[in-house]
Amino acid sequence: MAAKKKSKTSEGTPSQPTEPLSRLLRLPSGPVDMAALDPAATHGYPGVGKDDAPALTEALAPELSDLQERLYANGRSEPEQAPSVLVLLQGMDTSGKGGVIRHAMGMVDPQGIQLTSFKAPTKEELSHHYLWRIRRALPRPGMIGIFDRSQYEDVLVVRVDQLVPVSEWSGRYDEINAFERKVVESGTTVIKCFLHVSFEEQKQRLADRLASPEKYWKYNPKDVDARAKWPAYQQAYADALERCNTEHAPWFVIPSDRKWYRNWAVAQLLREHLVGLDIGWPEATFDVADEQTRVAES
Amino acid sequence: MAAKKKSKTSEGTPSQPTEPLSRLLRLPSGPVDMAALDPAATHGYPGVGKDDAPALTEALAPELSDLQERLYANGRSEPEQAPSVLVLLQGMDTSGKGGVIRHAMGMVDPQGIQLTSFKAPTKEELSHHYLWRIRRALPRPGMIGIFDRSQYEDVLVVRVDQLVPVSEWSGRYDEINAFERKVVESGTTVIKCFLHVSFEEQKQRLADRLASPEKYWKYNPKDVDARAKWPAYQQAYADALERCNTEHAPWFVIPSDRKWYRNWAVAQLLREHLVGLDIGWPEATFDVADEQTRVAES
Repeated sequence: MAAKKKSKTSEGTPSQPTEPLSRLLRLPSGPVDMAALDPAATHGYPGVGKDDAPALTEALAPELSDLQERLYANGRSEPEQAPSVLVLLQGMDTSGKGGVIRHAMGMVDPQGIQLTSFKAPTKEELSHHYLWRIRRALPRPGMIGIFDRSQYEDVLVVRVDQLVPVSEWSGRYDEINAFERKVVESGTTVIKCFLHVSFEEQKQRLADRLASPEKYWKYNPKDVDARAKWPAYQQAYADALERCNTEHAPWFVIPSDRKWYRNWAVAQLLREHLVGLDIGWPEATFDVADEQTRVAES
Repeated sequence: MAAKKKSKTSEGTPSQPTEPLSRLLRLPSGPVDMAALDPAATHGYPGVGKDDAPALTEALAPELSDLQERLYANGRSEPEQAPSVLVLLQGMDTSGKGGVIRHAMGMVDPQGIQLTSFKAPTKEELSHHYLWRIRRALPRPGMIGIFDRSQYEDVLVVRVDQLVPVSEWSGRYDEINAFERKVVESGTTVIKCFLHVSFEEQKQRLADRLASPEKYWKYNPKDVDARAKWPAYQQAYADALERCNTEHAPWFVIPSDRKWYRNWAVAQLLREHLVGLDIGWPEATFDVADEQTRVAES
């Protein structure tokens, strides 16, 4: 009973889960067994199925919009103190990082978003520490940052493809934890989302991309190469999830075999975190009465 | 009759203007008389009034989304050849540059948008030619760039506040025209929007910002200072509109006293320009049958 206390505020709204998604999707600490994480689950989904999803997701838009505007307003008025939010998206190819950005993040004002897609590092990026490019992309106060891939690539593809020796990548988990701690301490709420898609669903999505000329552009032959290394990637993900599942920046596992659930879930997670920040409107940085007189006389 | 040919495709849809907005709002060449431009007009608006606007604007979303995705797909598949679009927003304080970005540009995938807000130039920017920072912000192939303010600040505030001598800013009109010609020749469609708000409406909007604590953050005492220079700004705008109203990058005058019309109009203008680009889906850059086999066997 005590554990359910926090969800009371939203119990009246049928469009809200009865328990916060940030609790339901949070990866428990301890060993991670990828096979035990169901990629087709719909934890906390308040609807019946797919048909409800567009309306349930769209229903979040007004509140997300209001919450984001408060955050942004604080960033503008008090940049020294304003918080920021970082939504970090990781997942295998076709897991839907792009879909989440389009459908969930697309609901908030583009002025409040700082989106960075991390590709294979450039020459310049390679000449720096692997966290250099990450640090430069962190959201400014008042902003919602979105990372399409992230620092975790440096313990995922880098590990699987042996781009650096074990001795090098094995120290990165602790380094990332320390880095994220600093980010959080500086006022950024970090929401790490692992978009969890199954081996079978990935095959279907790749086949779909080849079945329609409208989707050819999304297809990359290298995705099949990476698919051949699925077990190695799953092991690398399991370790990244387990070793970087900290109190200050926990992982959320987003079941992603159902696109409609995935998009709703990330939007809902963002909403819950923004609500949790309890952001008011910033104070006036000028004398309101004086300015009213100036405007009236102008 | 011949002039109406182009609008035939959209005649069947009641949500579309009977004549393209890109014709109705295009500034005619020749001398510009600001007093003759009605800031409260609703040229081409297919609805009855304000109440229709949210639905009419929202109705553009699916097509805008599809058009933007085609553009983006081409940018990904054929970056050497793909076009891009630049929506440039200029207007007096409170004219609604932010509102347009939130409500009109917010309808497309944030992954396809490159937004730049030009503030007072930084030290670094001042050490370069005034077009340096503009050039760096131009949209990449496949992207929709948005300029919140632009190179025109260098013949507007710079002129009004005499930040550089007349001899310097007076040459900038031709320079901007030549610059924009190169931008267009490189494959970028430039949509220059002047958000035209009246002196009276500006006063009302400033007063509104002071009447509600939720809007304090939008208020800047400097806006009243700039308001005191209204006639000088109108003259500077008239000259910028007249002298930079080229065939390759014409000005569109967006009546902006009615926010609902303004937002719909910019979304509609963007739609028309995207339709005009007639963008197909890119060809596969791989052998489809071969890849289908690879996926099937994976």
